[in-house]
Amino acid sequence: MSYTLTRPRSEQRPDTGFVPAETLAQLTELLERRRTGYSMEGPFYTDPGIFKADMEGIFGKHWIFTASIAEIPEPGDYVTLDFGPYALIVLRTDDGGVNVLHNICRHRGARVLTESRGSTGNMVCGYHSWTYAEDGTLIHASTAPGEKLDKECFALKRAQVRIVAGLVFTCLAEEPPEDFDEVIPLIEPYLAPHDISQTKVAYQQNIIEEGNWKLVMENNRECYHCDGHPELACSLFPTWGLSDGLIPPHLEEVWARNVEAKIQLEERCDRYGLHHEVIEQLDTRIAGFRISRESLDGAGESFSATGRRLSKKLLGSLRDFRLGRCSLHLQPNSWFHFLSDHIVTFAAIPINEHQTLVRTTWLVADDAVEGVDYDLDELTHVWKQTNLQDKAFVEMCQLGAASPAYEQGPYMDSEYQVEAFVNWYTQRMREHIA
Amino acid sequence: MSYTLTRPRSEQRPDTGFVPAETLAQLTELLERRRTGYSMEGPFYTDPGIFKADMEGIFGKHWIFTASIAEIPEPGDYVTLDFGPYALIVLRTDDGGVNVLHNICRHRGARVLTESRGSTGNMVCGYHSWTYAEDGTLIHASTAPGEKLDKECFALKRAQVRIVAGLVFTCLAEEPPEDFDEVIPLIEPYLAPHDISQTKVAYQQNIIEEGNWKLVMENNRECYHCDGHPELACSLFPTWGLSDGLIPPHLEEVWARNVEAKIQLEERCDRYGLHHEVIEQLDTRIAGFRISRESLDGAGESFSATGRRLSKKLLGSLRDFRLGRCSLHLQPNSWFHFLSDHIVTFAAIPINEHQTLVRTTWLVADDAVEGVDYDLDELTHVWKQTNLQDKAFVEMCQLGAASPAYEQGPYMDSEYQVEAFVNWYTQRMREHIA
Amino acid sequence: MSYTLTRPRSEQRPDTGFVPAETLAQLTELLERRRTGYSMEGPFYTDPGIFKADMEGIFGKHWIFTASIAEIPEPGDYVTLDFGPYALIVLRTDDGGVNVLHNICRHRGARVLTESRGSTGNMVCGYHSWTYAEDGTLIHASTAPGEKLDKECFALKRAQVRIVAGLVFTCLAEEPPEDFDEVIPLIEPYLAPHDISQTKVAYQQNIIEEGNWKLVMENNRECYHCDGHPELACSLFPTWGLSDGLIPPHLEEVWARNVEAKIQLEERCDRYGLHHEVIEQLDTRIAGFRISRESLDGAGESFSATGRRLSKKLLGSLRDFRLGRCSLHLQPNSWFHFLSDHIVTFAAIPINEHQTLVRTTWLVADDAVEGVDYDLDELTHVWKQTNLQDKAFVEMCQLGAASPAYEQGPYMDSEYQVEAFVNWYTQRMREHIA
Repeated sequence: MSYTLTRPRSEQRPDTGFVPAETLAQLTELLERRRTGYSMEGPFYTDPGIFKADMEGIFGKHWIFTASIAEIPEPGDYVTLDFGPYALIVLRTDDGGVNVLHNICRHRGARVLTESRGSTGNMVCGYHSWTYAEDGTLIHASTAPGEKLDKECFALKRAQVRIVAGLVFTCLAEEPPEDFDEVIPLIEPYLAPHDISQTKVAYQQNIIEEGNWKLVMENNRECYHCDGHPELACSLFPTWGLSDGLIPPHLEEVWARNVEAKIQLEERCDRYGLHHEVIEQLDTRIAGFRISRESLDGAGESFSATGRRLSKKLLGSLRDFRLGRCSLHLQPNSWFHFLSDHIVTFAAIPINEHQTLVRTTWLVADDAVEGVDYDLDELTHVWKQTNLQDKAFVEMCQLGAASPAYEQGPYMDSEYQVEAFVNWYTQRMREHIA
Repeated sequence: MSYTLTRPRSEQRPDTGFVPAETLAQLTELLERRRTGYSMEGPFYTDPGIFKADMEGIFGKHWIFTASIAEIPEPGDYVTLDFGPYALIVLRTDDGGVNVLHNICRHRGARVLTESRGSTGNMVCGYHSWTYAEDGTLIHASTAPGEKLDKECFALKRAQVRIVAGLVFTCLAEEPPEDFDEVIPLIEPYLAPHDISQTKVAYQQNIIEEGNWKLVMENNRECYHCDGHPELACSLFPTWGLSDGLIPPHLEEVWARNVEAKIQLEERCDRYGLHHEVIEQLDTRIAGFRISRESLDGAGESFSATGRRLSKKLLGSLRDFRLGRCSLHLQPNSWFHFLSDHIVTFAAIPINEHQTLVRTTWLVADDAVEGVDYDLDELTHVWKQTNLQDKAFVEMCQLGAASPAYEQGPYMDSEYQVEAFVNWYTQRMREHIA
Repeated sequence: MSYTLTRPRSEQRPDTGFVPAETLAQLTELLERRRTGYSMEGPFYTDPGIFKADMEGIFGKHWIFTASIAEIPEPGDYVTLDFGPYALIVLRTDDGGVNVLHNICRHRGARVLTESRGSTGNMVCGYHSWTYAEDGTLIHASTAPGEKLDKECFALKRAQVRIVAGLVFTCLAEEPPEDFDEVIPLIEPYLAPHDISQTKVAYQQNIIEEGNWKLVMENNRECYHCDGHPELACSLFPTWGLSDGLIPPHLEEVWARNVEAKIQLEERCDRYGLHHEVIEQLDTRIAGFRISRESLDGAGESFSATGRRLSKKLLGSLRDFRLGRCSLHLQPNSWFHFLSDHIVTFAAIPINEHQTLVRTTWLVADDAVEGVDYDLDELTHVWKQTNLQDKAFVEMCQLGAASPAYEQGPYMDSEYQVEAFVNWYTQRMREHIA
């Protein structure tokens, strides 16, 4: 189901250890002189020290999407997730909940689970057989007669977890930012009708982009480059990110079609009681997000050349295929499209300052039969192509950012979400350093 | 025409960013205690911070050979050239001139041209279609109605250019060292009769040597190791770098042949009005160089086992095949051999502190027909072999320089040009730091 | 005879140069707060700066095992050995001694010998033919008439050497720690009867473990993980490291067998005049070591599934096959098993902070005939398997140590030799920094 990573592990190793004092001073200065409306300076994308600071200040502090429960449907199912220097286990528990645990044995630091996914009972470290329960409790360690080991002191470390309509989020900080709990009730009603608990993974693609995670995100947050996505542009209106009065001449015809489709979609949503209003708080809160339901071109059903459905089975409680896409953008590193017939989740998982794993997962109704209800190649075609195109874009920018001749360029009006991402990042890092 | 590079891009990525203060202090000390007549201390060849300083102080400030006009014969032809963190476009213009531009889109920093060579009209960035004219002017960027973009502020950055007898040089500094303009009239008369504008590229070899760029240069600047070049030694007298009174016993016979050939060559040059006097200013000026016309062994015509011509077509305005080699050494990173039947250009292009791309290009008369007037394997044999031998030498030294037990060794009399290179480098870096 | 290394040289290059001041301050603090009885903090295993400090403070100062004389049986035979940034030649001399020389030409720093092993007369650098005698003396360098070169100033640098029962040790420091000379007479009587001088190399395995050298050593110093070595556990009692009163229930039966075998072994040793008492000074002296002769399970003869001999020829002056294993542990990076029918030597050779070459060499009697007296696959089976299992264990820990969530874990009683290794390392590094 999953692509094999094409590069050996050792080359992906991030530079770990403390952020050097000199880097911190440099970073502080760079954050202070950040120029609004412009891309960031080169070192944000190329400096190993700033990458370490990102791991601490962003990925070590904020809510991060890990997997959906469709990836771990049964008790004992798990996914292991590495980002930067961190190694996590995302484990479905017997009561149907999810625990996120640091994948590090408390004895000698070995990885406890070594596969990228699987199913386990108690977790047994392969080195000295220390055995942990699903909540991380150390339940067995071989000892000599008379040898004392206070098992309560050596449980696997746990991270905070929130499950939002089947999406599993984790926060590594002991005191997570509180406002994510305010965001959950805002976004859950949009997603719940698609009911991830009744879906299954049709496919997962893991590609490594030779670019900093922030370039991956910036690329994701604008459609100014959508001429470079011919397959996607068949269904996703390339006017995305634009609004009335901002439509360039060559997109006017598309925009008119979009407006018409929007009216129809809103009628449908109102009929079925589906939320469709845009909520956009990308850089105005800590748990920055944007959610909306937007129309698709052509048949308006799914990400295909014609806009027609890609799976014959409707998701969850939905009663109509023509529901456009419910799209969610989250800071710092994930985005999602919920359609009537399938869901696509995306995560940009940092490896080191110049490499990012982009994981894309396609979910379909759990009773959809491959080859009967959906064709896997057709289902995945648009985003596989789009991801490869985006990989090329990101890599072109990474190479440029390394040059001393690189200079910050202006974001265009249609790139306002890129600006919002950079604003969000800059604010979080300032807070972190302070 | 060009070898594919054998290592993927991402492994060649230099460590970019500022030179750490600690490195700068260390470098200052190392430069101060430089021991005349001896090789440099290890960190000059192995330290990533000193590599960054080299990029700033040498490659960011001085005149660098990029390509000959034979590589870009038609308007719109271009070569892209990366060295260290820099990325350049070398572009033939409609009026037959050459522009050198930083290959970095002013919008989001993407590489504008992504191929290593090709032909282009206006340059269109593949990311958001920002379009630049041959002089770098931004001539198109899609905007929304009412959106303002001051195109004049976002032209591709240009570097300074000088064309010397068809060799294209660039300087990335805003105020290039002035004395290169004094050097041009000294060397142009030697090269002009070979007329690069009437040549074509027969072959280009790109090899990556696992060694610092300075070791590549030091190796190039002496023939004390020429016993390791059996193919080259057939035509290039291995007494190169020596002079009367400095000839070791085992080379005395060769020297006598050399002296005789020299007399004959000078007669020929005088007859045809060709310059042959040695001008040597390797470390006595900023634009350090050495030029000469020297005899070849055997038939004295070209770099072959017998010394006989390798192409049947004479270059430019030349009227005789027996003209030895007109050789040019330039600081910091290039050298050239102009013969009656072909030209070979060499550039040592730094990748990172332990890897250097050596690019060798063979030019023949533009009306020479492969397989009829020249055989490509024969034409390239001597320098292909020599380059591989030099690669091994450089790599042996790079490994040695990394050891704490490495100690500076003495340059021999015949290595005086190596000493001159190190003198030149040391002076430039002192000036840069000061 | 030797595995080819599977990764290209350039990727193994350690980061050379000075230890940054910031690293040194951090290291000092980490050493000060070292928690007794617990594994070390993460940066000891992942920080490139601490690796450099290890190279200076451990490998640059202490006695290191290089090879046995069985690898260089004839005058002129040599092995080259690189660890971290160091490059050495281990050379058998005409008088049967061994010289260890830095493999760095004194002229331009080239590697003098470029093969991993071979046979040589005078050593001729391949670059400019500088020629050295077996003691490192420069005996030839080509000069011009009148050119002066004081050959006495440019001998290959030599390291200190001690040969202990055929094992060649070197120390790179000018003033080696003196107590190794006290250790030699303690261990030599155990090893001498196996007489390495009458053995030959049957096989050498070189594997690269993706882990810090200290993790390789810590793994070697305990058998708490021996459930992970099913092949080894057939002959090596998995109660190794335990003693009466420390036997966990599941090992009680094995322990009883061990005790019985021990009694029989000691009787045999006494009969033949072989030493068997344990001497254990792992962290109580600078030249830390442990030596013992211990019983094997089953037939008690060798490392096979049945405990039966793997070679039909007895070593040296031995007169019985059932002699268990005489095992030697040395700080910082080697261990050895001397059996009646073969010897296995092990060295953990640091490459960089996250890679270690583990070299295992099997020696048999020099008159043993492959295919007749021993089967090579059978001879090497147990330790080849065990090494691969250990490689996996080390790599699991290296990944864990990189995580900010990694925390020092407790060493169990049976891991007391791991604690001793860490104690030894910590003391040596404190002394080095002070």
